[in-house]
Parts: sequence; C-alpha cells; structure tokens
Amino acid sequence: MSETATRRRRSGGRAGHQTRAGHAAIEQMPWRIPLNPDRPVEPLDDAGVEAIHRGAMRILQEIGIEFLNPEAVEILRRAGCRVAGTNVRMDEDFVTEMLGHAPESFTITPRNPGREIVVGGRHMVFVNVSSPPNAWDMVRGKRPGDFATFQEFIKLTQYFNCIHVAGGYPVEPIDIHPSVRHLDCLREKLITTDKVVHAYSLGAERVEDVMEMTRLAGGLSHDAFEARPRMYTNINSVSPLKHDYPMLDGAMRLARRNQPVLVTPFTLAGAMAPVTMAGAVALSLAEGLSAIALLQYIRPGCPVGIGTFTSNVDMKSGAPAFGTPEYIRATQMTGQLARRYKLPMRSSGVCAANVPDGQAMWETSNSLWAAVTSGTNFVYHAAGWLEGGLIASPEKFVMDCELLQMIQRYFEPAITDTSDDAIALDAIREVGSVGHYFGCEHTQQRYATAFYAPFASDWRNYEAWVADGAVWTQERAHRIYKAILADFAPPPMDDAARGALEEFVIRRKEEGGAPTDF
Amino acid sequence: MSETATRRRRSGGRAGHQTRAGHAAIEQMPWRIPLNPDRPVEPLDDAGVEAIHRGAMRILQEIGIEFLNPEAVEILRRAGCRVAGTNVRMDEDFVTEMLGHAPESFTITPRNPGREIVVGGRHMVFVNVSSPPNAWDMVRGKRPGDFATFQEFIKLTQYFNCIHVAGGYPVEPIDIHPSVRHLDCLREKLITTDKVVHAYSLGAERVEDVMEMTRLAGGLSHDAFEARPRMYTNINSVSPLKHDYPMLDGAMRLARRNQPVLVTPFTLAGAMAPVTMAGAVALSLAEGLSAIALLQYIRPGCPVGIGTFTSNVDMKSGAPAFGTPEYIRATQMTGQLARRYKLPMRSSGVCAANVPDGQAMWETSNSLWAAVTSGTNFVYHAAGWLEGGLIASPEKFVMDCELLQMIQRYFEPAITDTSDDAIALDAIREVGSVGHYFGCEHTQQRYATAFYAPFASDWRNYEAWVADGAVWTQERAHRIYKAILADFAPPPMDDAARGALEEFVIRRKEEGGAPTDF
Repeated sequence: MSETATRRRRSGGRAGHQTRAGHAAIEQMPWRIPLNPDRPVEPLDDAGVEAIHRGAMRILQEIGIEFLNPEAVEILRRAGCRVAGTNVRMDEDFVTEMLGHAPESFTITPRNPGREIVVGGRHMVFVNVSSPPNAWDMVRGKRPGDFATFQEFIKLTQYFNCIHVAGGYPVEPIDIHPSVRHLDCLREKLITTDKVVHAYSLGAERVEDVMEMTRLAGGLSHDAFEARPRMYTNINSVSPLKHDYPMLDGAMRLARRNQPVLVTPFTLAGAMAPVTMAGAVALSLAEGLSAIALLQYIRPGCPVGIGTFTSNVDMKSGAPAFGTPEYIRATQMTGQLARRYKLPMRSSGVCAANVPDGQAMWETSNSLWAAVTSGTNFVYHAAGWLEGGLIASPEKFVMDCELLQMIQRYFEPAITDTSDDAIALDAIREVGSVGHYFGCEHTQQRYATAFYAPFASDWRNYEAWVADGAVWTQERAHRIYKAILADFAPPPMDDAARGALEEFVIRRKEEGGAPTDF
Repeated sequence: MSETATRRRRSGGRAGHQTRAGHAAIEQMPWRIPLNPDRPVEPLDDAGVEAIHRGAMRILQEIGIEFLNPEAVEILRRAGCRVAGTNVRMDEDFVTEMLGHAPESFTITPRNPGREIVVGGRHMVFVNVSSPPNAWDMVRGKRPGDFATFQEFIKLTQYFNCIHVAGGYPVEPIDIHPSVRHLDCLREKLITTDKVVHAYSLGAERVEDVMEMTRLAGGLSHDAFEARPRMYTNINSVSPLKHDYPMLDGAMRLARRNQPVLVTPFTLAGAMAPVTMAGAVALSLAEGLSAIALLQYIRPGCPVGIGTFTSNVDMKSGAPAFGTPEYIRATQMTGQLARRYKLPMRSSGVCAANVPDGQAMWETSNSLWAAVTSGTNFVYHAAGWLEGGLIASPEKFVMDCELLQMIQRYFEPAITDTSDDAIALDAIREVGSVGHYFGCEHTQQRYATAFYAPFASDWRNYEAWVADGAVWTQERAHRIYKAILADFAPPPMDDAARGALEEFVIRRKEEGGAPTDF
C-alpha cells in the first residue's frame, strides 16, 4: 500500500483540530523524512571528479585560506598547517585525515523528538526560506521585514509537514533591536514550532544564547544537550578565500558542543569565483573543506555538512542568477565531490524572480530538481524565497510546498511497484477493450490513495475554474496562506520548559542582550 | 569554448534581418539537435523492468488487442497471430522478432536539409503544442481555434530555434471545413516553416495528401521521398486495448513509404488504464508494441517510435492530471522499457493548469525534467500547452521555450568542463582573497558566453523591475509573442516547389478535399 494511504488515516486524527477550526486549511501529506531512491546525476566522470578535487587541494596547499579569527589560526598552526598572518595553507594529507573523522550522516533532535531529522545518506530535508531582509505578498507588496511578518512565516514553517527545519529567520525583523533580536526570534521559534532550529553565527553571545534557549526549550540537562545534535548553524565563507571572525567563532562553539555546522561558501561564478563552473566549485570546496578540517581537528567526529551556493551572474547586469543551467550542473558536481568526501550536502531552492509567477516556479523547480539529482541532503530556502533571497513571500512559500510534497511523493516506492498486483493483469482482463477502470474492484481498492493529491494546484477544466472565479495560482496561494494562519494552532509545549525559556529571555534582555558593535 | 559562443556570431549573421525589422524580437540560441549526456533515472531494477515486460507480453498473448481495421487483422493473421474477429493475440517471439527489425535511431529530413532531426539515441527534439481545440491569450482569453491563430502559432514554431518539429496543428482551425483543413494547414506549415511536418492519420486521403504535399514542397521525386523519412505521423490507440481504423490505416500507409510512425497510447491510470502505474505502463506498452509489430511485419526496418502518455486522474474529479509525481515515474519507467526494446521514445511537455501561471510552470517543468531523466527522444507539446491539451497559448509557448533553451544549455558539456583552464587555478591565485573576478583576464575572455542568457526571465532586482513597469512573466511573454510576430520573416522556399504545392492544393480543393463522413 502506498505511503500516502497513511495520510487519510492520520488526517483523521486531526479531528479535534478540525472541529475547533471548522475545517483544516488544507489536506497535506504527513510528516516524514523523505528518502531519495534515485542514483544521482553525475555530469563528471572519475577523472573530472579528481580534477576538481585536485584543484581544491592545490588551492588549500598553494594559495591558502584567510582565517580572520586568531583562535582558529592558532589551532591550525598547532595542527601543523603553514600559517602566514591570517593565511593558512593545509596539505591534502591533513584535510583527508580530518575529513575521515566527519560522520557521513547524523541526526538533529529538536524539543519534540518526533521531529528528529536525519542529515546524510539518502535522506533529504527541507528548510524554510532564511534571512531575506524584506517580505512581499499579494496585498501589501514589498516592505521591510518585521516581527509580525516573522511570526506569520514561523507559523507556515510549523504548519507544513514538508518543512522539516525552522532554519534562519524567514524574514529579518528589523523592528527589533539587533541586540535582542535573536532572543525574541528564537523564543518565538521554539514556542511556535517544535522543529529543528538554527543559530546565526553572529557573535559569541548570540550563539551561546541560542544553544541555551534550545536546551531550555527541550528541558535538557547540559549533558543531555551535548549528547547529541539538538540544533545547528550554517556559516558562509567570505568568498574568495576568507572565513570571517564571527562565523568561525560560532562554528567552533557549536562543534565543541557536538552541534552541527554546515559550511556554505557563496561562490558566484564571474563575481567572487571563477567564471568557469568547475573553478567556482573547486573554490567553494576549498573554502568549505578548510573550515570543516578546522572543526574536525577541534572535535573529531563532530557533525558537519558541506554546502553549495555556486551559481552564476547575469551576463548583462552582474546580478546573481539562480536556478540556471549552470546552477544545476554546479550543484550536481558538488554532489559528486560531497560523496567522494562522504559528507552530507546542503543546497537550496532558489530563484531570481521578484514575484511568485511562472519564472519563479521554473527557476525554483530547476533548483529543487538540482537538489534531487545531486543527492542533496539539506535543502535550504526550500519554500518562500524570491528576488535572489532579498524577499520572503508567503504565497511563494505555499506554492513551493506543493512542489516539495510532489518531490516527497515522487520518492515513494509505491509508485513504481511492479508486483503482480500492480501489473494488474486480472483487472486488464476484466475491463477488456470496452469497459473503463473507474468502476473495477482493482481501482476501487486503491483509488483514494493511488495518486498525489494537491492543495494549491487547480486541476479542474477552464470552465469550472472560471465559474469559481478564475483564480490564478498566486491568488490561490494567498488564500491558503491566510487560511493556514486562521487555522494555526501551536504545538504542545512542556510548561516548565516554556517557563524556563521565558525566564531566560527576560533575564538576557535585562542584561542588554548581545553587543552590536562588531 | 562554450557552444553558446556561436550564438553571438550567428546572431550577427542576422544583420540584414535586424536592419529590416529594426531589431530582432529576442536573442535566442542557435538551431541544434540537443544531445542528452545524462544517464537516465531508473526507478526500476532489472526485475522490475522484466515484470513490466512480462505483463505487456501476457496482455498481448492472453488478452489480445482489438485491431478495428480488417486489412491490419488480415496481415497479422498471415503473420501467424491468433485472430478472433477483431481481437488479435501475438506471442512474445513474434513481437521480439518484429522489434528486432526496428531501427534504434532514424533521421527525418524536411524541405530544408539544415533542419534535419535525429530521433533516437541520446538525441532529444522538441515539438510545438499539437491539437488543442482552443486558444487562450492574455488579451483575448479562451476562444475556439481559427486559422489566423493557427498561423500565429506556426510562426512561433518556426521562429524558435529550440522547436525542432512542426508537429500537429498547434490549434485546430475550426473555421476551415474539415474536408480541406489539412490542405490549408499543411500548405501554411510547409511555406511558413522549413521544419519537419506531421500528418494526422485521419483517413487515407488526408495522409496521402500530406505525403504528396511534403514531397512537392521538398521538390522531391517519389523515389527521393521514400529514400528516407521526410515527415511522420503519430497515432494514438483507443485505450484500453484498441487501435481504430483510420489510425492504423495512416500508420500502414506511412510505413509502406518508409515514413516514421510514433505510437502513443493515452493510458490515464484509473480511467482507461489500471490505477497502478506499472499496470498503466504495461498496458500502454502492449498497445504500442502491437502496432509497431504490425508495421515491422509490413515493412521490416521502417522507422517507428514508442510514445508514452501515461498519467493519472484527479482523485476528486476524474479529470486528467499532468506533470504529477506519478506522471514522472511512469515516463521514467517507460524509458527503461523503450531502451530494453531499443526503440526511440516520445513523451510530452504537459500541464493541467488553465493559464500560464506558477502551476503551469511547475507542472510543465516536472514533465520536461521527466523527459530529460527518462531519456526521451521526441518531446511533444514542448511549448504552448495548457488545460490538459485543450488550450494552446502563445504566452505559454514563449515561457516554455525559455525552459527548453535552459535544458539545451544544461546539456552542453562546456558547463562541466574540468580542464586546467576551467579549474582556473591561476585566476584563483591572481584574484586571491581581496579582489573579485569581474575584471580578471580569465573572466574577460569567457564572460560573454559563459552563462545561459535568458529572453523571458527578468533577473533585475525588484526596484529595477518595478521601475520598468513591474511586468509579470506572462505579460512579458505576451509582449515577446507580439514582437516575434511583428519581426517574423518566413524561410526561403524554392519557387518551383512552392508553385507545385500551391497547384496541388488548388486541384485537391476543386476535387472536394477529403471525405468527412467517417
């Protein structure tokens, strides 16, 4: 039986919720961690993989990476790397040895253990849009992010079962002072969602605060917190060839406490990376691997992942482009190297489009299929991203979740079942050449769960669609977003844990939060 | 150097054209037959492939196919098949022997030999939308097809270099009487395009007329016409388990003259095929292979292809759905079987959406990536299709061509070049950690042709996009469609050939065209 069969039964379990709200906003697939059964697409042969690997190693050995963090430099010096000021050169042997410590796969367990995710192997998880400074919706247009909008996106993040991780801030709430923003944002996230959360590596205090808040929200002892990954950070290098102070600081703090670090260089070919995609990928890998080597030296075996954000610029304007053919291939190439290094991999769901229209969806489709075909494990910005990451849109969030659900369904082995029952010779014999399959027993037994059921797509014919208002996809998505907010109920939370979390936030605010002068 | 490098030079060659029109409507990629370098995605293991094969063979052996054409039945009786009325059962040995005659790959050469296509192997060609009864555009909305609209779509078909085949009528011109419609439509196609054309198998006279018109337009002798494929037909079975009279008649006429036949059952899981995708695929293959076996018996070695149109219905309404997860997997499974049979394969670019919005593009992206990952050779409806094939839209045509160009670019080996030059270690050393790559020599040499250049996508930031009118994708596509029509110039045509074609059409119209009483 198809995995989607469980959907009906589980959604039946939401009866109490449905009674309260009158109806569920949408009928969606159940929570699950998708498994990607496909062999990845491999544009490079073995020699090509080795050429990029050799390129990355020569960058590390001959050119070196700037580590703008004295502590990191000192550690790498002790590890035997060649240091000249902030420049650190490392040999392939060292990198290989360090990569050998990194786990191929790890879990992250949030305050609700039922929302535990697996990062690595054939697993694939989807993360909400993270870090846009602005929001856009069909009614209000583009405007700077604020906390009320942040709260809306956090509800969408929690609501959709196909979103597995409450990653970075889905929109930057600029109406909250940076010194306490992380306190309000994480408090909101840890209460409104029960999914894996993330800390920005923007200074020691913020990172330590988020780790402590995550620990408190989970009702965990310090030992229990460190016993396994509970949250994560993502750091970006400053391409070309630099890691900055706060990113390295945050990454080292998390690694020491056994919390995962994803390292994602942003190598835009033609701007901060070579115009050739293999060069951009080699540069990205060199930057990423250098930070991972540092973390593995600090705490061998700590959970890490390699990210890719390699894309290209617009030939005309120099603006970043996303979901391009070059982006897809760079992602697939990075996937081949990530498997060579046995590291979990992150990529993204991205587009350059400014509004949730056709271009937005073909670019996003390209990037999500790139994630699938590259064997990506951790898909950032999987729902809600517009304008190259400068806009978060709730309509786009809803539309993207339809794609994510379709990808999850695409992965289900039930679709490609070739048992005798699935070949259905008896039904074919029964229906013959004059009947149809609507009424036959074989169909009746399987009909309700045989196919993907959409929530945002309109599959009616044109006339029925017109009779119902001729509503375009972005408008339907707007209505769904509003219905979800109206329908939203936060997940249960232990009172003591919530009390401890609230108390911590009050105390830290009284102390002034984090310094904002770096 | 990237293949796109040639684009700039070739578009320079359009100088005369540009002078006349003031400017080219868009800057597009040059004509080429794309080669798909990727290993196909294979959801089935060997046992799964054999299970579907065995299912198809048992359908043919035990249940049989209805051939509603006495001539076809008589031929198959002579071939040793078991016949009972219109029911024909054929053994695996016979099918295998007949499939052994079919070429793995063939060419089709239209009146302009420069537009020759290859069908099979790693080649992939794109066909315009075919056969919708209605048109829709941003200004006029939905309306029945007419000849003026037909002409517009034929111009788009010719204009775009990424459209390789002028397939079926892009919209049905219902203002022309069916008895002479094929004469007006093919006359228009053969003059306004120089690409491969198609005959509907809708009666002997139509098929013979189209073959004759194709011969005359090419200035060919009868022998030269039959010496190689010059046009093609596509036939659909009447699922379940039937081939109708005119489709078989047309297919046999083409096969006898060495012209290609694609056989494409339309097996909608849950309606005219089993609700299980493996069953729907097995049924589709049985229907398709039975017609191919007939044609190979009639003329061993004649060019044929196997088509798939296996999708699923909407669980709620019974309406057809397209670009679904089930559709993608069915296409990939069919690809595995097509390779087992060493037959070229056809699939489609399809969607259920009614307008060119987000849903239209995610469904179409899904189906086009299904074509790529299944190893499809011949992509029907690759541009312009809406409402499950009931609507042809010029905006959708333009938007789809952006996707098709991106797929062509995605296939280019230049993107994944891993030569020393592409790894770019010298440039990485030169730029170091403080510069950027915009200005370096390595970038300057490659910049203009390094990346895909879009014509419909808008990659500017939100503010620049707003300042220019905040035009959504479908509106931009509308403008491009209008600009292309304004800019359009038909391809050159030999005067004598054109005269012969015109004369033929006049004569056949005087004779009354084709009968319309079947």
